Order: sequence, then C-alpha cells, then structure tokens
Amino acid sequence: MVRLDVKIPQVEAGSYTIYIEAGSLCAIWERLEADYPNLQKFVVTDANVAAAGHLATLIGKNSPQVYSIDPPGEASKHIDTVIAIIEELEKAFFGRDTLIVALGGGTVGDIAGFAAAIFKRGVKVVQIPTTTVAQADSSVGGKTGVDSSISKNAFGAFWQPEAVFIDVKTLLTLDDRQYCAGLIEGVKHALIADSEYFEFYEKNVDAIKNRDLDVLGEIALKNCQIKASVVEKDPTEKNLRRILNYGHTIGHAVETASGFELLHGESVAIGIIAAGMIEEEMGLATGRLGRIEQILRKLGVPVRIPAEIDKKQLINIVKRDKKAVNQWPKFVLLEDIGKVLCKNGQWAVDVPRDLVEKILTDLY
Amino acid sequence: MVRLDVKIPQVEAGSYTIYIEAGSLCAIWERLEADYPNLQKFVVTDANVAAAGHLATLIGKNSPQVYSIDPPGEASKHIDTVIAIIEELEKAFFGRDTLIVALGGGTVGDIAGFAAAIFKRGVKVVQIPTTTVAQADSSVGGKTGVDSSISKNAFGAFWQPEAVFIDVKTLLTLDDRQYCAGLIEGVKHALIADSEYFEFYEKNVDAIKNRDLDVLGEIALKNCQIKASVVEKDPTEKNLRRILNYGHTIGHAVETASGFELLHGESVAIGIIAAGMIEEEMGLATGRLGRIEQILRKLGVPVRIPAEIDKKQLINIVKRDKKAVNQWPKFVLLEDIGKVLCKNGQWAVDVPRDLVEKILTDLY
Repeated sequence: MVRLDVKIPQVEAGSYTIYIEAGSLCAIWERLEADYPNLQKFVVTDANVAAAGHLATLIGKNSPQVYSIDPPGEASKHIDTVIAIIEELEKAFFGRDTLIVALGGGTVGDIAGFAAAIFKRGVKVVQIPTTTVAQADSSVGGKTGVDSSISKNAFGAFWQPEAVFIDVKTLLTLDDRQYCAGLIEGVKHALIADSEYFEFYEKNVDAIKNRDLDVLGEIALKNCQIKASVVEKDPTEKNLRRILNYGHTIGHAVETASGFELLHGESVAIGIIAAGMIEEEMGLATGRLGRIEQILRKLGVPVRIPAEIDKKQLINIVKRDKKAVNQWPKFVLLEDIGKVLCKNGQWAVDVPRDLVEKILTDLY
Repeated sequence: MVRLDVKIPQVEAGSYTIYIEAGSLCAIWERLEADYPNLQKFVVTDANVAAAGHLATLIGKNSPQVYSIDPPGEASKHIDTVIAIIEELEKAFFGRDTLIVALGGGTVGDIAGFAAAIFKRGVKVVQIPTTTVAQADSSVGGKTGVDSSISKNAFGAFWQPEAVFIDVKTLLTLDDRQYCAGLIEGVKHALIADSEYFEFYEKNVDAIKNRDLDVLGEIALKNCQIKASVVEKDPTEKNLRRILNYGHTIGHAVETASGFELLHGESVAIGIIAAGMIEEEMGLATGRLGRIEQILRKLGVPVRIPAEIDKKQLINIVKRDKKAVNQWPKFVLLEDIGKVLCKNGQWAVDVPRDLVEKILTDLY
C-alpha cells in the first residue's frame, strides 16, 4: 500500500474587536466603508428592526442591497432562509468580495453568519446586534447556525465575525417581553463565571428594568468580557466553551417543544431552574436556587414548564441534542454561583436519564 | 467608546493520510472500525456505486446506515440533497460523534463532505473515491460544496477529510465516458506542475485507455502528490491553490450552460483548450496547444463548445464565477507545460472581457 500524508498547515492566531457605545449606530456605516473599502456590503436584517428605525439609522443616505428576513424571529431561522439569502446574493452578482452586515437580534445574526460561512466557501461578516440576547451572547464567539425541520441548529458552522458593534440604545425599542428574555444570557454569564456580577443583577434590577443606558452599557461589556474569555480558550467547543450552555440543554428542548412560542431567553430561564434542581438532587447546591429563581422572576421570565408542553416530546428532543452522545447529552452544572462544576477535566457531566425525567415532571 | 478585543487562537498544524492500493476496498471497513471505534458511521453513496458492487465490497457483513443519493450525478449536487442527508442523520439520532463515509465519485464526495462540514457545526468525514475524477482531484484538499438553483458551488466550505482511501480497481466498473472525462484532472495536474508527467500521458495513453492497474496506480499517486503539494501551501485558496483551477473558469461555465449534459472533466477539457487559446492570443504560448489538444482527443473528450450552448448565457455564467471580482473572474494561464504564469505574485491574472468573448466565439 502506498501512503501519502497531506499536511494541514497551522492557522495563525487572529482577533476581532467589539465596539460598545450608546448612540453609535448612526456612525457605523461610515466606519464600515473606511475599514472595508473593497468589499461589497450586503445587509441582512428583518422587518422588526427596520420598523424600529435601526436600518435607517445604520445606512443613512447610503443605499446598500438589503435582505429583510420575513417573518422576523425564530420561525425564519431555517435553512430555507439561508438559501434565499444566498440566491439573492447570486442574483445580484455578489462574489467572494462580499461583506455581510448582520443588523438585528440573535436569529438575524445566526442566519446571516451562517450564510456568510457557506456562501462561496465563506465571506466576511460583521455583527450589529440590536437585542438584549444578541448583545449578550449570540453576536460574539462565531457560532452560527439554523434549524432543520427536525431540530435546532442542525445546520451550522463556526465562523468568526470581522467586528461586532454594540449600541445599547437600540434596546430602547424592544418590547418588554423580548427585552427581559434577552437579559437571561447575562444572568447565565454571572452564574457560570462571576458571583459579583450576579450580585450586580440583584442590586440593579430596577435600573435594568427601566433600561438605564449606563447600566446596560456595563452589562454589555461584562457579558462580552465573560463570553470572550471563554471562547478565546475554546473557540470550537471542545470542552470549556460548553459552560456557556448552562441551562441550555433543557432550555433548547423546551423552546423547540413550545413550537418557539417561548423565546430563547425564556426557555433558558426554565433550563437554568432545571439545572439548579438537578444540582440539588445531586447534592451540589447550597440553597442558592431561591436567589436565582427570585432574580429570574423579577426579570419577568417564566420559571416553570408551561402545561401545554408534552413531556414525552420534550424527552425525545433532549435525546436529539446536538451534543448528545449515545442519544443522551451531558449537562453543565454549577458548584456555586460563579463557578461551574468540573469533573475529571470535563465541563459537561453525566446526569442519569431518570433523574432528568423526574425533574422535568416536577418542573411543570 | 469601549473596545474589547476577542482573540482567535492559533490552530495547530495537522495532517491526513491518503492510502492507495488496488483491491483494498474490501479491507477499508475493518480499518475504519479500528481507527474510529467511538464514531457512528454513516455511509453516503449513490445507486450507481451500489450497482457497481462497491458498497457491498466496502461494508461486507456490516450493516451501517446508508444514504444513497438519487439520482446519481451532478443533478443531485444541490443544497436539497444536503438537507435530506442531514435530516436523515437527525431522524436516526446521529450526533457529533458521527463519521460520514463518502463512497463514490466527485459529487458524492462534495455532497457528503459539505454535509459533514455543516451538520451540527461539523463532524468527521473520510473519502473513498471510486471514479477517475474523484481519485484525481475532489477527494483530496478539503473543498466541499453544492450548487444552488443559480450557480455551481454557491454553497460550500473548506472541510478536510480524516483520511482518503483510493482503490484504483473501482475504476474498472466505470463506463468509458465517465472514465475518460475523469482523467482530465490528471492532465491538468501535469499541465500546471510537471512536464514529465505530461509526457507520461503521451507515452501511456493506450495503457491508460486499457485501464492498466499499475499505470492507474501511478497516476493516482502522482495526482495526489501534485494536489497535496499545492493545497498544503494554500489550503483555503488565497492565491497559489488557484492554479488547480486551470481550465476551470470556462470549464465550469460550459458545464453549467450545458445543463450538466457535459461531464465535469469534459467541460474542463474544453476549458483547457480555451485557456490555451487565451495564452496564444496573449503571446504566452509556443505551439504547445496542438500537443495538448492531441492528448485530450486521444482520451476521447470534447475539445470544442457544443453548438447547443448559448454564448450569451455562457458569458453571464462566467460573470457569476465564485471567484469573480467586479463581475469578472481572473484566469490561470500557463507559461509552459508544467509551469503556471505568475504575475506580480498572483497566480490568477486579468484577461480582457473582449478577448475571452472572441475565444468563446472561436471555440464553437
């Protein structure tokens, strides 16, 4: 037998910058033109973002090609939307010299980022998140993906943005439900990494609910710092990055089982409570679940599984979790507020099926 | 404004192995089980490959999950096929611990490789190419992709295989047309990198047409060596790798314009002649086009654009080339047999539109 080894060369380290400033949206387009003069800009957004005035603020007097995702929200986070975007790029003769500008919430960023990852084997993308969830989480870290007809994020890629621009003033146009749900990823960051940051939520809950721009700026920075420190160490989720999935295993399943009636952050809130109950059952918790539940309740998100959700279906979705091995996922659990349990070097650990099933029953 | 830099860490160098041996197909499954004991194997193939007996030879008494692409060939190299494969993986509860085993020609490899690249943000794939074109070209180098309804390879990713297994004996079941068309990528390798290898084609054309396994083994090795030496230096086609596209700019356009009635290798043969004519017009050639045309004719592939192909449509497709900038691609051209023209450090160079249009007219 003849053997021939093909080398895959080292890829050098790189970086991208997150810019955070209230009221900066109107200045970003000029910056994009200056930073990427040779790239053809293609904006991906949705009707809600346009209606809130953010598209007009971003582009000003410029008239770039714009794709508006319709309908806005999770229902469009599907491979069909990515296909439609890419065919639109092709019809307008966009090439590899494309810069996709993702303006909107988490679904816009996930869809646009994935389209960038697979259009002509990859083009550049900048993220301009306009929602609490996108600013706290999805715009940073390079995870992109869309759903299939069967499960969440069945299609996806790791594709780092060229830059992220955060203007917390865009959060003022969100409705209360979207706004509050998106705060939960920040609470999750506090739970996995920083007990002082958790106390910040406890102390500032009124200012947060009143959308105080200074407090929101502090939250945006803290979220990006925590997320960046994790994804820098493990960009493709071999191990440590999995701590960002705290509350997400049950959260994703609840979100899917609700037919996306529940928002992502609302589902993660339920997932955080589920994780806390698992921790109590496994003897890891020390009375902290009450504090966590209280802050989630104050932020106005659900902390129990809605009665309409079928438990059997929920279990089936958990089995299909994208991180499942042998049809059962591992779980990220806390040792304490601000500290994730690490067992034999692993940040996601085994939890027996019957224990999870019991907790799901209790959580209705 | 607050700025926060997110580091993207270095990715270490790696490698994968190409194994070449006539008659080895029956031993590969055992090797996969030994090398990847913890991965769930999912075979992607097509009805032609199964009918030729290669699927049975590969799996023997094992019964892995198999997805058979239907219909076989370019018509299925579409994003819809990738979606169908991924939904099949999901229905069978495959997770990130999946090994996709691509058994077949170039389209099977491209489809299966792309499905691996985007299923749950990427799973492992091994390539077992069974055609001349796949053994010469597409199974090595990590380019994956599928077509949209508008153009070729609109969707794609760079995704390296874990290993490539080449059994030249599988070539014995190909029909003459497929067999000959697939040889053209090897001729292209000779043209861009190795004049002695080009002479090897001239000397051994009868043995090649008679499918002499020793000669085919030599060709397989030479093709992999040339391709590997290029992709190692430039895995993501920033510059040097573009030399592998010799003959492909017009070739791809002719292939698309023929509605895929022409095979990839047949189209590339026409593209090689087009490139040669461009070289003559630009004063680069020294009477070598006759030699090139002769070997292509002996290998039984077309060297002129079929009359049915609409020239206007052809030009439009060239404008949409995935490497086009400002709606016009650059061209890879030869300085001599075995040597690509490099201009100001660039391996793909500008050619005026009217010159290309003139040559396309002459080439009918």
